[in-house]
Amino acid sequence: MPRYTGTKRAILDATLELAATKGITGTTMDEVAERAGVAKGSLYYNFSSKDRLFEELLQEGVGALADTLLEARAGLHGRAALEALIGALLDGIASNTALAKLMASEIFRTDRTWQRTLFALRHEALAVFAEAIAEARPGSRDNGTCGLMASSVFGAVLMSGLEWLVFDPERHRDEVSAAILDSFSGGLLGD
Amino acid sequence: MPRYTGTKRAILDATLELAATKGITGTTMDEVAERAGVAKGSLYYNFSSKDRLFEELLQEGVGALADTLLEARAGLHGRAALEALIGALLDGIASNTALAKLMASEIFRTDRTWQRTLFALRHEALAVFAEAIAEARPGSRDNGTCGLMASSVFGAVLMSGLEWLVFDPERHRDEVSAAILDSFSGGLLGD
Repeated sequence: MPRYTGTKRAILDATLELAATKGITGTTMDEVAERAGVAKGSLYYNFSSKDRLFEELLQEGVGALADTLLEARAGLHGRAALEALIGALLDGIASNTALAKLMASEIFRTDRTWQRTLFALRHEALAVFAEAIAEARPGSRDNGTCGLMASSVFGAVLMSGLEWLVFDPERHRDEVSAAILDSFSGGLLGD
Repeated sequence: MPRYTGTKRAILDATLELAATKGITGTTMDEVAERAGVAKGSLYYNFSSKDRLFEELLQEGVGALADTLLEARAGLHGRAALEALIGALLDGIASNTALAKLMASEIFRTDRTWQRTLFALRHEALAVFAEAIAEARPGSRDNGTCGLMASSVFGAVLMSGLEWLVFDPERHRDEVSAAILDSFSGGLLGD
């Protein structure tokens, strides 16, 4: 459920398309205006600066992802919750691959003006996984490792999801999710 | 074991430091020369262009990582090989966090002039994991899912390793590796 419509929507979509191939630094406000089909005055009227534009883009995209994750696990517990989250994240990456690529490349930058926003958003998305993990394994909340495990799972889905979509798109989605679930079910290091 | 020494080494180190905070597009040859303490003529004598400079930087860094991984698993099989690889990748990320950040942000770009190099390098590093997985689970080689599982494991270590180093550096390395190994030992989705 995108928060924006009309001109703002067109600008955000154009920005994401450009940034997915050219990176953030390589994307100019002139190019955004041209791709979105809006005048430059209108672009700056809607987003006061390039920094603000990218901050809102990530805010909307990661916020929508976190909402999707929360919905996916609603009413589920333990293993079922975690499986639902893995599937929902994989589908989120498939439905907005440009955003997933941007997230992968921005997630550990610490020099952006929107760093606090990104930090909060990253935390919001990871917390949904951490909560499900802490519920399934209460000890991991006590020693704080549920956050690390959440990063493990998130990183696994992000990387194998992008690997699939960018380099091996002919493969069926269910095969990808099965391989991820298998990895975390003790298929690799289990007894 | 770095392949380069002297001026080339100083240039590559300076490039990595700059790119880790400013990104590749945001890094200029002028800044590289200044940070490395070399004349611009010397910079271009050693690396004919900025593209060539980043190509060699990634080539050396990821190549060294792949060598480290191969060494770590030498003589080991199955579960022991995979555990050794996870530990070695985590240590590689800790010893060269700037390179790990750069890899995370470049790994799914498909617009770089050095894309073929990066593709080959990514494949080289992932193949070490895929081989160990295929050995432990022969069926995964037949249906091609050992590559997806390799991406899962690589992504899990990369993301939780960077999460640790960037946002939670006080935590002990062994706690991080234990959380990752636990995730893949059926600790999350196992019976």
